[in-house]
Amino acid sequence: MTIAKRISALSLSFCFLLNIPLVFADDGMWTFDNPPLKQWKERYNFEPSKEWMDRLRLASVKFPGASGVFVSPNGLIATNHHVASGFIERLSTKERDLLKNGFYAKTQAEELKVPDGNVSILESYDNVTERVHNAAKSGTSDADSATNRTAEIAAIEKDCPSALRCEVVSLYSGGEYWLYRFKRYTDVRLVMAPEEQAAFFGGDFDNFVYPRHDLDFTFVRVYENDRPASTPNFLKWSATGAPDGEFVVVSGYPGSTARLLTVSQLTYQRDVGNPLQEKVWKTRRKALEDYSKRNAEAMRQANPGMRSLANSLKRLEGQQNGLLNPRNFARKEAEEKDLRDKLAAKPDLDKLYAPAWEAIAKAYADVPARANQLAFSSLGSSRLATIAQQIVTYQIEAAKPNAQRYPEFRDARLEAFKTSLLSPAPIYPEMEEAALTAWMIEARNVLGADDPFIKAALGDAEPAEVVGRAVRETKLIDPAARKAMLEGGVAAVNASTDPMVTLARRVEPVIRALREWNEKNVTNVETANGTKIAQARFAVYGKNMPPDANSHLRICYGVVKGYDEDTTLVPYKTTYFGLYDRNLSFNDKSPFDLPQRFKDRRDKVDLSTPLNFVYTADTIGGNSGSPVVNRKGEVVGLNFDSNNQKLSNRYWYIEEAEGSRAVGVHSAGIIEALRKIYDAPELVSELIGK
Amino acid sequence: MTIAKRISALSLSFCFLLNIPLVFADDGMWTFDNPPLKQWKERYNFEPSKEWMDRLRLASVKFPGASGVFVSPNGLIATNHHVASGFIERLSTKERDLLKNGFYAKTQAEELKVPDGNVSILESYDNVTERVHNAAKSGTSDADSATNRTAEIAAIEKDCPSALRCEVVSLYSGGEYWLYRFKRYTDVRLVMAPEEQAAFFGGDFDNFVYPRHDLDFTFVRVYENDRPASTPNFLKWSATGAPDGEFVVVSGYPGSTARLLTVSQLTYQRDVGNPLQEKVWKTRRKALEDYSKRNAEAMRQANPGMRSLANSLKRLEGQQNGLLNPRNFARKEAEEKDLRDKLAAKPDLDKLYAPAWEAIAKAYADVPARANQLAFSSLGSSRLATIAQQIVTYQIEAAKPNAQRYPEFRDARLEAFKTSLLSPAPIYPEMEEAALTAWMIEARNVLGADDPFIKAALGDAEPAEVVGRAVRETKLIDPAARKAMLEGGVAAVNASTDPMVTLARRVEPVIRALREWNEKNVTNVETANGTKIAQARFAVYGKNMPPDANSHLRICYGVVKGYDEDTTLVPYKTTYFGLYDRNLSFNDKSPFDLPQRFKDRRDKVDLSTPLNFVYTADTIGGNSGSPVVNRKGEVVGLNFDSNNQKLSNRYWYIEEAEGSRAVGVHSAGIIEALRKIYDAPELVSELIGK
Repeated sequence: MTIAKRISALSLSFCFLLNIPLVFADDGMWTFDNPPLKQWKERYNFEPSKEWMDRLRLASVKFPGASGVFVSPNGLIATNHHVASGFIERLSTKERDLLKNGFYAKTQAEELKVPDGNVSILESYDNVTERVHNAAKSGTSDADSATNRTAEIAAIEKDCPSALRCEVVSLYSGGEYWLYRFKRYTDVRLVMAPEEQAAFFGGDFDNFVYPRHDLDFTFVRVYENDRPASTPNFLKWSATGAPDGEFVVVSGYPGSTARLLTVSQLTYQRDVGNPLQEKVWKTRRKALEDYSKRNAEAMRQANPGMRSLANSLKRLEGQQNGLLNPRNFARKEAEEKDLRDKLAAKPDLDKLYAPAWEAIAKAYADVPARANQLAFSSLGSSRLATIAQQIVTYQIEAAKPNAQRYPEFRDARLEAFKTSLLSPAPIYPEMEEAALTAWMIEARNVLGADDPFIKAALGDAEPAEVVGRAVRETKLIDPAARKAMLEGGVAAVNASTDPMVTLARRVEPVIRALREWNEKNVTNVETANGTKIAQARFAVYGKNMPPDANSHLRICYGVVKGYDEDTTLVPYKTTYFGLYDRNLSFNDKSPFDLPQRFKDRRDKVDLSTPLNFVYTADTIGGNSGSPVVNRKGEVVGLNFDSNNQKLSNRYWYIEEAEGSRAVGVHSAGIIEALRKIYDAPELVSELIGK
Repeated sequence: MTIAKRISALSLSFCFLLNIPLVFADDGMWTFDNPPLKQWKERYNFEPSKEWMDRLRLASVKFPGASGVFVSPNGLIATNHHVASGFIERLSTKERDLLKNGFYAKTQAEELKVPDGNVSILESYDNVTERVHNAAKSGTSDADSATNRTAEIAAIEKDCPSALRCEVVSLYSGGEYWLYRFKRYTDVRLVMAPEEQAAFFGGDFDNFVYPRHDLDFTFVRVYENDRPASTPNFLKWSATGAPDGEFVVVSGYPGSTARLLTVSQLTYQRDVGNPLQEKVWKTRRKALEDYSKRNAEAMRQANPGMRSLANSLKRLEGQQNGLLNPRNFARKEAEEKDLRDKLAAKPDLDKLYAPAWEAIAKAYADVPARANQLAFSSLGSSRLATIAQQIVTYQIEAAKPNAQRYPEFRDARLEAFKTSLLSPAPIYPEMEEAALTAWMIEARNVLGADDPFIKAALGDAEPAEVVGRAVRETKLIDPAARKAMLEGGVAAVNASTDPMVTLARRVEPVIRALREWNEKNVTNVETANGTKIAQARFAVYGKNMPPDANSHLRICYGVVKGYDEDTTLVPYKTTYFGLYDRNLSFNDKSPFDLPQRFKDRRDKVDLSTPLNFVYTADTIGGNSGSPVVNRKGEVVGLNFDSNNQKLSNRYWYIEEAEGSRAVGVHSAGIIEALRKIYDAPELVSELIGK
């Protein structure tokens, strides 16, 4: 029943799309400079004021790879537990496992400072498209243009107020460039976290699944000068949350979409890129799984990494299933054809833009032969090796003029780079050794013993030997040693006998050569020609759709709404009744077990309180922790998941009629947990004033 | 994700089957003369005694089209609410709506006698294959064989103890014939029924869906000589029910499967039979839906019919989706090919049996041209018209020798026929008129005004005119009028001016001619050649599988067990927590609303009590109300549904790895409801002695 029904839903939207390409229902991850005000007014009679929009933007907090929201004037931030879990893990030890047991600071004095915690907000932005495009135009080849563009971007970023961090962001495949100025907060303290088992109830099974029953929230607070930061642009917390049918806006930092890719780029993803990515992640996960079986402490160490990889793999599987669906793919082909047909009707534009598709297709023709090298020539599965490699590469780049460096080592990003590099977050040598050894074994299997990367890394030795010595003897586990090497310049790197540094030094030229080949032959071609396609799109359709997501602030919207699945209905919300049902229907077995506190407090909780809920907003990974906001600008929930109908959202917007939904933790469910399960009246009072 | 996963599961089992056709996991609806003792012993180390098996058989109660079970020595029977709903409806009036409000008789004196209620058990059985086959063999053509076979069967059935009802039952497409002797109970009284909304919570949406949360049970009691019948062969009720992983046996009366059909028969079903059946049912449902919108009373009247049709249509859709799945169909083709290939290796058998497939395929080639006539030449959508037509046909048949009559009018079945015909169950003339008028309009659309059935029924008049007069003026609404016409013989029918009788008289020759064409050209060919194919199967594989279900007593088995769906796990049971979650997550909206009693008693109920549960047994429609029995012979639940993964079970056994499950009401859940919601300690005491 399922199968026939879903296919028929797809086929409907497919027909629909053939007639009116690029016009969708509530889709789009819009930039704040171009919000979908027209759609809001027409469909929902919603016309926010400038103050409403500004407040939402300034309350929207960027976490590493994810989102959060200011919810009090005193720097209090709400986000997902799985977003803050890196912070919580850094505060945990063998003796004090905050991931497992949760945490609550009754007073500000008890709040725990996160090592290298940092978050930011988008303070202001300006359109710099003309400057960047003009610089690029002066180039005589794609490579030349790229150099000029890079230099201009570096110059723009350099001119930045000292309190802020500046970054030029490419939108519409280079069709626009914007200067974003961020305010950073580097003193982040943990206020409250539930047990991971409550936040991630149902484990990987229930990830990307709805109905769901997870208390995936955490509260942190940012400090300035050792006092809670003043954050007047916070959003009010709704004690009741959103009812069925409510219009909601979701503001956050979606990671990446690939909706503007050409058919040739998507074909590469489907046939080469995604299968290879799956292989890479599975190799890493297998290494962690094997390691985790050694003992309970190894399990604790490996758990965050395994969880993150499981999440990535499940998402990738959904995305790949989307690409493998011939009807979906045909829809992309029809869209591209429509654009190119309309372009062909305007010969002057056609002459200018039509070659762009061919150029990209030609560039991708050469990638498969090097794909394994690009994917496996890496030390990325070990944190220590990554540190070593970053230092080696940094010293080479730092010797160059700012504009000629790799973007991650330009002045504007150096502070963030150094903070991350010098983080005292715990490193577990046994896990490092296990992960890197397993990786090098698989890399040798894939690339062969004569591959330049393998030869540089291993010579004639075995992976276990090289990696074992490097991990055992390296001094880089100590942040002070990293600092010394950072300050010692190229000379310190070249003189080092630290076996992890020498390993990184040996592979650096190989990795650099691959990166340069890729930039010259693929990335630069994509950028130059992606810009042309974006301009063609503007010329044909106007600026009627938002750019692909790129980890920067976006706003999306939709309606709180259940959906059809198989032959029944899925409700718009779940309740605490459902949490206990799922727990007991699996006889309290892992991963459907509940912390003891939930059993003890069961009779205290109002079980009819909503727990999770769904809405039609167009979100993607990175939107985790985003506030779900009602017309009044109140937080009615925290976005934390999508259902599996939505996984191929990366490549195209999945119609809400197909059952694709974003999933949030309900704001009332969080209040109920804080009150009845976690005895946190102080936090409740800060959120809702009672 | 769903789609790819299910297809890959199918493809696995497909490969498996190509190698070892006809050997499955826990499959089969077995006859009591050939229970799967070998599989039970090997897989579950279960070796029931003869007493265990006899007791199970004698406790298994046949309801019209469904099943039930004796659960006390005093005639108490448990079944599903939807099985007993016909009984409950007959006891309901506008003023006393027992379907809506439920019912409980605290004392036997309060138990309500069901008009024409009747149930039976399989008292004994004997193999009469040789007698029937020998008789058929003496025929010189398929038609001649059929006449001889029919006569022999009538003779066998005639020789029946007076207290019993005898019926010769064909198994394995005529490969075997068995004489079944039934004990009938005709005094059935209603003891306890929950509100339909509790029994059918979630309505048609949650039908064939799991997780499910329905209290689909009802208790009735059979009486003899106005006293509770003595039923020493009852099954004990389990107060705790079955845990995860428990081995269970399900005993009941599955309606029909079509697993021994040839590829040509299945092709007909897929391409013609099922689409036509869907059209017929949708026509009927549409008529009832339109009628139900007139007012609340019309809704009450139409509801059981609409519910039954919705159920049939949902099941048919699932079955048809199964047939439309090319992998499933290829599996059937592979099975048939395997049998025919193995047969070809034995030339003497091949010569005897191989032509059977061709004969059936040839017979079916002629059916599509007449399919519309066969389906639409009917008055079956009206109860009054059906009564008239039955009387007219009965009088023609009754004049013939017993052996030459239509089977339904042979002496052995006359008592049941007359009881049904003379039932005082309420008939609603407005609904009759609406349903039959709509039907005749559609029949005329499909068949055309010149079709013999349409001309006979309507002449040149409009459907509304003919039907309106027939319904308004007929006397057949009064059982006494039916009785008079039954006793008046052919003369009474011929002399009648009752416009419903004259309508039936006019169409009778058309319907008779179609039925005779179908018997001669299709049914007889199928029976004769189906028998040959069954014999071929016995010769090649032995008697290694049970016959197709045919509404007679069968036993199946499996394990209480959850399953994978999409990317998560589905638990083996649901709890009362889940019921309240689903109720509240839809904001108590129909059909997810709950009777007031459930809200009032919520705090009294132990919400962790199991409510529904799933197991791998091979069941199908007709198994509703079947006891689910543990090794000790205790009732751990009442079977009432299948999930949608199982719907195409009609054509082939769906592997449990594909998530196909039968769904039961948990025995502990029923006790909890009786105690805490329905205040029925007397019934609880009769069931579990406390």
